[in-house]
Amino acid sequence: MKKLINAVEDVVNESLAGFCAAHSDIVRLGNTAPFVLRRHLKPGKVALVSGGGSGHEPLHGGFVGPGMLDAACPGQVFTSPTPDLIHAAAEAVDTSGGVLFIVKNYEGDVMNFDMAREMFGKMVATVITDDDVAVERSTYSTGRRGVAGTMIVEKILGAAAEEGRHLADLKELGDRVNAATRTIGIALTSCTVPAAGRPTFDLGEGEMEVGVGIHGEPGRRRQELRPANEIAAEMVGAITTDLGDRARGEVVLLINGFGGTPLSELYLMYNDVRKKLEASCTVARSLVGNFVTSLDMAGCSVTVSLLDKEIKRLWDAPVHTAALRWGM
Amino acid sequence: MKKLINAVEDVVNESLAGFCAAHSDIVRLGNTAPFVLRRHLKPGKVALVSGGGSGHEPLHGGFVGPGMLDAACPGQVFTSPTPDLIHAAAEAVDTSGGVLFIVKNYEGDVMNFDMAREMFGKMVATVITDDDVAVERSTYSTGRRGVAGTMIVEKILGAAAEEGRHLADLKELGDRVNAATRTIGIALTSCTVPAAGRPTFDLGEGEMEVGVGIHGEPGRRRQELRPANEIAAEMVGAITTDLGDRARGEVVLLINGFGGTPLSELYLMYNDVRKKLEASCTVARSLVGNFVTSLDMAGCSVTVSLLDKEIKRLWDAPVHTAALRWGM
Repeated sequence: MKKLINAVEDVVNESLAGFCAAHSDIVRLGNTAPFVLRRHLKPGKVALVSGGGSGHEPLHGGFVGPGMLDAACPGQVFTSPTPDLIHAAAEAVDTSGGVLFIVKNYEGDVMNFDMAREMFGKMVATVITDDDVAVERSTYSTGRRGVAGTMIVEKILGAAAEEGRHLADLKELGDRVNAATRTIGIALTSCTVPAAGRPTFDLGEGEMEVGVGIHGEPGRRRQELRPANEIAAEMVGAITTDLGDRARGEVVLLINGFGGTPLSELYLMYNDVRKKLEASCTVARSLVGNFVTSLDMAGCSVTVSLLDKEIKRLWDAPVHTAALRWGM
Repeated sequence: MKKLINAVEDVVNESLAGFCAAHSDIVRLGNTAPFVLRRHLKPGKVALVSGGGSGHEPLHGGFVGPGMLDAACPGQVFTSPTPDLIHAAAEAVDTSGGVLFIVKNYEGDVMNFDMAREMFGKMVATVITDDDVAVERSTYSTGRRGVAGTMIVEKILGAAAEEGRHLADLKELGDRVNAATRTIGIALTSCTVPAAGRPTFDLGEGEMEVGVGIHGEPGRRRQELRPANEIAAEMVGAITTDLGDRARGEVVLLINGFGGTPLSELYLMYNDVRKKLEASCTVARSLVGNFVTSLDMAGCSVTVSLLDKEIKRLWDAPVHTAALRWGM
């Protein structure tokens, strides 16, 4: 294992300290526990809290700031944050408007956010994301996994919360955006969890994993590595088949790198994916880069999210976070 | 070699097509040749043109847009752009204010930009960047190499050009920013050039390359991989020693990933580097991410650029490019 780290047990805290120091104009570390919160809270606004295992950076801390999240709760690498941490974050960011949890569909995350919800006791709603079309159940999830589409839900809800929308409205909107969002990922290499010190899974020199999860969980199958345009066709096919009749109109297209893939390859994939997708949809907005990663895994995911007039307006609304910024 | 590509010979053009399609609000592909240019030119402004071999994305295309570059000329992977391409880009973006070339100090790049300058014949000045303190000459360079500090020069000059500064002023400012900027890089793995199909260099399981170049050129030495805080101390030491008496006051600190290193490790390095650096300097502005990459190389570089009142103001000025955006 070759990593830029000190002691394995300090990886998350040291990385978090660096993150908060680098972006001290936008975020700060919680006083009571190691979560990331928005430096300047907006009184009365519904507070958006997300979180999950570390190792997916910039998700979620990189999306804390005006126009997106109010707090992010990081667990250890690929490990759910504790209910205590989530509870502390909710207390810290609640300014009387209530709190909305945005949770990726993994059993540990769902359970711990549920426990935090009981501990908090006040106005809370939860949006669970499950955008991964690859498999119906997986190593850590019953039902579909929440993956890169989560950042789209966070962006849309962040803009809506900033406008002063109420908790019940936001819950309904979040469920609607999640239901309009589909993702599938492929891996060319495994990731290596620092505490494990070796690759999570083995993949032969000429092989790829189709439908991989963001913790290196198995997908649909392993197959021979193919040219980018064939991979793009398969990924777009998986998404549009799943969307069925809804695969039309304007969409956001997100090509998300898993951490070890050069940007040039992500743009090349974007080129092929877009051509295939435009047989049925219109790509109205695009994002290409590392947003929801799996440590150093090589590979990428494709996310398609259907736009309507309201969601498009909320997508375009100003956002000012470490990893996503426009309009301010 | 595991890459998301189609034919090796199409990698650069397909990636470029994807890039221009994804960011069509900011950039477009040249009509006469495959360079990237700003979609809306500003008449009368000095046009800033950079370029170099591909494989360092988002440099340079990702920095084309309001507040930064007017055009970027990509060569094949790790290969200088041709004089014809640079000439065509200069013609396309010149709106009577003259053209400033920003060139990383590699023999091929310097030669080809010089030839393009002769072909263009009109008002041109050139700023050559050579911020890498690692070695005094290298595989492709006489004198120091131009590396990640180049993006700082591009940002400052972009802001100054936007304000209507003249060519001679910009040339002087660019030389001044370059002279105030120092970088050193380390690699944990080699990169793999698509056309070569195998790693550029071999590095043992427990080894790192100190002072590596952005094409995988050798640095100062190879040594055992050490904890992040020791690596940070050595990198900061190399930079502050080189700066000598000037290593004080406010600086921009850039932790730049080479393409294969997770963001979490870059923030961990930022944490350690910042602590060491603040023994002598004040970190007033920070950037952490993949900005000047070496394909899929694991590792990072540290750049320190001295700020004065003018340069700080220009750093903070609005910029709107694919890879750097604030204030608009």
